[in-house]
Amino acid sequence: METFIPHAPVGPVSREVPAVGYVHGYSEREAARLGDQADVLAELLHSGTRYPDGSRVLEVGCGVGAQTRHLVGHSPGARLVAVDRSAQSLAIARARVAEHAPGALVEWRQADLFALPFDEGAFDHVFVCFVLEHLADPADALERLRRVLRPGGSLTVIEGDHGSVFFHPDSAPARAVIDCQARLQAAAGGDASLGRRLLPLLEAAGFTDARVRPRTVYADRTREWLRAGFTRDTFVAAIASVRDEALAAGLATPDEWDLGIEQLRLAAAGEGTFHYTFFKAVARRLER
Amino acid sequence: METFIPHAPVGPVSREVPAVGYVHGYSEREAARLGDQADVLAELLHSGTRYPDGSRVLEVGCGVGAQTRHLVGHSPGARLVAVDRSAQSLAIARARVAEHAPGALVEWRQADLFALPFDEGAFDHVFVCFVLEHLADPADALERLRRVLRPGGSLTVIEGDHGSVFFHPDSAPARAVIDCQARLQAAAGGDASLGRRLLPLLEAAGFTDARVRPRTVYADRTREWLRAGFTRDTFVAAIASVRDEALAAGLATPDEWDLGIEQLRLAAAGEGTFHYTFFKAVARRLER
Repeated sequence: METFIPHAPVGPVSREVPAVGYVHGYSEREAARLGDQADVLAELLHSGTRYPDGSRVLEVGCGVGAQTRHLVGHSPGARLVAVDRSAQSLAIARARVAEHAPGALVEWRQADLFALPFDEGAFDHVFVCFVLEHLADPADALERLRRVLRPGGSLTVIEGDHGSVFFHPDSAPARAVIDCQARLQAAAGGDASLGRRLLPLLEAAGFTDARVRPRTVYADRTREWLRAGFTRDTFVAAIASVRDEALAAGLATPDEWDLGIEQLRLAAAGEGTFHYTFFKAVARRLER
Repeated sequence: METFIPHAPVGPVSREVPAVGYVHGYSEREAARLGDQADVLAELLHSGTRYPDGSRVLEVGCGVGAQTRHLVGHSPGARLVAVDRSAQSLAIARARVAEHAPGALVEWRQADLFALPFDEGAFDHVFVCFVLEHLADPADALERLRRVLRPGGSLTVIEGDHGSVFFHPDSAPARAVIDCQARLQAAAGGDASLGRRLLPLLEAAGFTDARVRPRTVYADRTREWLRAGFTRDTFVAAIASVRDEALAAGLATPDEWDLGIEQLRLAAAGEGTFHYTFFKAVARRLER
């Protein structure tokens, strides 16, 4: 299958300002972090998602391919189109999928979710993961995704919810740095607590048979791989990655920030425990 | 099997003051509420807990028998001893178990967890549910439970964590009333957020092979029975039941309280959603 990713030169890595960009930025370290996250979370998030051979599947907002490689791994016979608005992310995604699944049939397209270059009803299934939480108008986004689904086709959405975070030892400074990240995401137009409202969003966008279920991560010292892979290297790393933006926005002093991160890290060490809930939704476009 | 519950006359219903008593009080409405809660939650909490025929099982803090009837239902051949410090609760528990499981073999004992009238190693298994969160020294309690277990015997503990609560539509007044309940529980010596530290507590008390897992309730309009049975009639009802204590303690004005409860109820209606996590732990007393 032909790939459509433009071979734009990958320029110098830039961190976009939080008020206008993607809160996690586009650095190489970010790409590695998002990849690690997907490895640890793959089974938790992808279980139950298998697409039939030959079915037309669209992933929107594939980013650096963190989920794409698992989509391909679980549904090797599906005809996957992976879309992202960033050429740089697509280049990383393509390399990653080529490395992990050399024969995978993926069509890469650079496009914006709000201007999808596909006909109405072009896909049997649509998959989006950690995308709606970054959008100012997730309901509008869902309507656009519905349009490219055939009647009866399925949409799968996975989102987190920062309200699900709690940990031991509890710490007000640690909770404060998490709140900083949520506020940066809000300033960029997103909603770090979107998971809890997936059902009403899907219903408002005209989907039917919507079903939302929590997918919970709980990590303590009896699951060292999970607290290293998720608590430390995914969640705490994601919070720590917005330090510069948080300080620039005046949301914390350097000392406050560093203390918060230090105390948050205790949730991934010794007797620490950590809890986070993702939400996975499946809904259908109404039959004609 | 003989029952040991003293036939104390059930006196006038009294609400104990929160600073010295059990935060949920002992009224008849409370008994009904705690019973409803157990029905809806039974499968979520009890799945995986089955005791062999003839094994000696101790439930401590059985209260009004909300869990006892399910213990009996799932392990009808076990020799269950159910303990509570309240004669009034035991009387209700005995009537409830007699109603739901007429032939059940339960020995009822009025006793305090910190003065258990049993020999060291008297039980193969111990079960406690929603008990540690009400105690000023849960670590000491766990050591006492360990003492009455035979070496290699198992302890099962189920606790909630108020930090796991989030809902749609989000509401600061609603979060405030939940916080009032947690503060009342703290004033009574308890910890409404104990679930997250079950593992370190068990390890500190000398248990081995401890394993803690979340048991999550997520309810939206697609599971009306769950949001009626859990969100509305269990969780919101539990918060609403401490109104008098919260006002007496000066934690809220009547208007603040009523607004908070009204907004919390929206999580169980229309497009509302609600999330809560229980933790279930199983650990063993070290072999000799």
